[in-house]
Amino acid sequence: MSFIPIPPNSDFPLENLPYGVFSKKGESQRRIGVAIGDHILDLSAVKEFFTGPNLISQQHVFAEETLNSFMALPRAAWLEARNVITKLLSKDSAELRDNTELRSKAILAQNEVQMHLPARIGDYTDFYSSIHHATNVGVMFRGKDNALMPNWKWLPVGYHGRASSVTVSGTPVRRPWGQTIADGAEAPTFNPSRLVDFELEMAFFVGGPSNDLGTPIPIEEADNHIFGVVLMNDWSARDIQRWEYVPLGPFLAKSFGTTISPWIVTMEALKPFLIENPTQDPAPLPYLRHSDPYTLDINLAVTIKPDGDEDHTVCKTNFKYLYWTLKQQLAHHTVNGCNVNAGDLLGSGTVSGPEEDQYGSMLELSWRGSKEVAVGAQKRKFIADNDEVNLVGYCEKNGLRIGFGDCRSKLLPALTKQ
Amino acid sequence: MSFIPIPPNSDFPLENLPYGVFSKKGESQRRIGVAIGDHILDLSAVKEFFTGPNLISQQHVFAEETLNSFMALPRAAWLEARNVITKLLSKDSAELRDNTELRSKAILAQNEVQMHLPARIGDYTDFYSSIHHATNVGVMFRGKDNALMPNWKWLPVGYHGRASSVTVSGTPVRRPWGQTIADGAEAPTFNPSRLVDFELEMAFFVGGPSNDLGTPIPIEEADNHIFGVVLMNDWSARDIQRWEYVPLGPFLAKSFGTTISPWIVTMEALKPFLIENPTQDPAPLPYLRHSDPYTLDINLAVTIKPDGDEDHTVCKTNFKYLYWTLKQQLAHHTVNGCNVNAGDLLGSGTVSGPEEDQYGSMLELSWRGSKEVAVGAQKRKFIADNDEVNLVGYCEKNGLRIGFGDCRSKLLPALTKQ
Repeated sequence: MSFIPIPPNSDFPLENLPYGVFSKKGESQRRIGVAIGDHILDLSAVKEFFTGPNLISQQHVFAEETLNSFMALPRAAWLEARNVITKLLSKDSAELRDNTELRSKAILAQNEVQMHLPARIGDYTDFYSSIHHATNVGVMFRGKDNALMPNWKWLPVGYHGRASSVTVSGTPVRRPWGQTIADGAEAPTFNPSRLVDFELEMAFFVGGPSNDLGTPIPIEEADNHIFGVVLMNDWSARDIQRWEYVPLGPFLAKSFGTTISPWIVTMEALKPFLIENPTQDPAPLPYLRHSDPYTLDINLAVTIKPDGDEDHTVCKTNFKYLYWTLKQQLAHHTVNGCNVNAGDLLGSGTVSGPEEDQYGSMLELSWRGSKEVAVGAQKRKFIADNDEVNLVGYCEKNGLRIGFGDCRSKLLPALTKQ
Repeated sequence: MSFIPIPPNSDFPLENLPYGVFSKKGESQRRIGVAIGDHILDLSAVKEFFTGPNLISQQHVFAEETLNSFMALPRAAWLEARNVITKLLSKDSAELRDNTELRSKAILAQNEVQMHLPARIGDYTDFYSSIHHATNVGVMFRGKDNALMPNWKWLPVGYHGRASSVTVSGTPVRRPWGQTIADGAEAPTFNPSRLVDFELEMAFFVGGPSNDLGTPIPIEEADNHIFGVVLMNDWSARDIQRWEYVPLGPFLAKSFGTTISPWIVTMEALKPFLIENPTQDPAPLPYLRHSDPYTLDINLAVTIKPDGDEDHTVCKTNFKYLYWTLKQQLAHHTVNGCNVNAGDLLGSGTVSGPEEDQYGSMLELSWRGSKEVAVGAQKRKFIADNDEVNLVGYCEKNGLRIGFGDCRSKLLPALTKQ
């Protein structure tokens, strides 16, 4: 229990302690904080408390403007930090609780701050690891018999994404212009995308010391490089994507904006929600094998809020529907010697479940625009101007709830002219 | 003319003045320098000379450890810097020439330094803009009738690459392990790539203030965001690529290493070598149209040096064979609102010419391994362990030679076990 009041159903009890970067409203200085209930503990104000063997000479990482340096420390340092923060916020510990001056400096209300990207994202990779999503898209574009590509069950298919256009919850996204082509047309046209979509994803931040270029991270050590998880809306322009993506993959269809939730929920906080991995058939090659449970039971949902309306849920699914685990994704990513760095972001791919109301994109929910999806009193096939999309994620078990906070973004109308 | 001696055929006369980042051997401090003949002018030692209106309050950019801050200044600042450096190094100007103490501090021999990446590369994009290369690859993999995809002549096809694995000339690359599949086989195997290849490319660094996410850079303004050009070897593992790349594009086949030359040759230095653009048919959509010459006449070559042997040229081509210009690449990249930042790297794609000895990859030179390529007394279909690949680039006209320096990298044998 914390001496900070935790509202019922809060995403951020003492057992969560996610990391984020904030600034006080009206100030430009960015600070590292931990969410607790409706409050934030400003780590820069309490850095002197990190006196364990892994952190005593590294206290400066808590006074930086991004989490990169902290995340780059070895996993033992992350665990040490979690213990210190748990103790500081506990109702049984007097250090912060009874120090009025320090409390007034170190504890802020979340509604008094502006959140920022938690890290400088060096590289952003997006996987494609939900078998339901990959199958749905395959059926729509290639038919039932060729739905899954031959490689899909052998390796976690992924691609490099655009890091610069990853933004934090609350940042609007603008409907992109681009080339699209009508069915059967000879030539493309240039116009605002008509088929803007969300993609419900989660993504993990890499942590730990970088592996050197040329040196893979074996799957047995992947755990030491998976720092924590955020929600991610991989905004997509389906009509631009369809025309541009052959043969080198999605490009401008994705790089107009990607929204992540501001709080990185650590793997340590998610441990109680690790469950058995899905059966993989064929058995993966040895470099992708691990038997410890690393699938996460995280309830996921997407809401759409039309302009002037309120949030309406359009899908409910679960992160457990991922076929490939985060460990497998990281081991595969580095097996060729690719170097990963603290702050790199690895997306899961759209998380769809087996049922029709568990699909993680409008493309699937409207089955390529062939049917309408109810959004309150309105109908949608894709996202309309000024719709606000939010992703919801939380784990729940034996009265413990670990949540992810908002991952919210409004689609602004296209620029009027180009 | 400079008071620094310029050896005949030097890549770096007074008219070039490319920017790079170096450290003195045995020191860790990185510095920004300009190549002149076999020497370097250390800009941190002469930053007080930048007293023009655009730089007087920005002298600190020359004391940083990467070029990002300098490149992020508006183009007017780049021009001002070039004028100052030209004057400082000119034989008619006494400021540096006659100041023995300053000269001994500011002028270094290139063989006394270690070169580094010139910038922190935020995002790296690779295009596919040589029609000869795209056609060759298309013929090999899809046959003559479907060689070029329908989108290829409408837009500069490109994809996001991996920024972390871009390294500077001199850094070796290790043969990657990965999944490959034999023709007709049911299942892939895990082994070192057997088909490691070079790709002869050039790449440009973005400069100027960032465009905001959601705001394209129109083609009329592209010039203000194209800082300069380097050589780039986009190392590729063809067998890994063939199995993994469907449907999201190349991933691990490329991210084990990409080599760039250390000196960024500015667009200003390349101006005398701008020539008419190739005819584009169909005419590009309006957002991709420009009529000013922006095609570069740069002689390119690739050499391979087998272990214990010397450099042998395997292809000679020219950067002018690019179908899409750098301006078109940048305008397309941002037309959806994607934000680009100083230090972003945009590759051209493999530069192949129309003739068989002008192909920019072993894949094409050996026509998918169907014939052998002479490398001195040896034969190659792809790159062998301990081969060192170098790219050569220079412009030449009326006695003026502007060169790019080395882009050299050795292929180390694969790790013995994974």
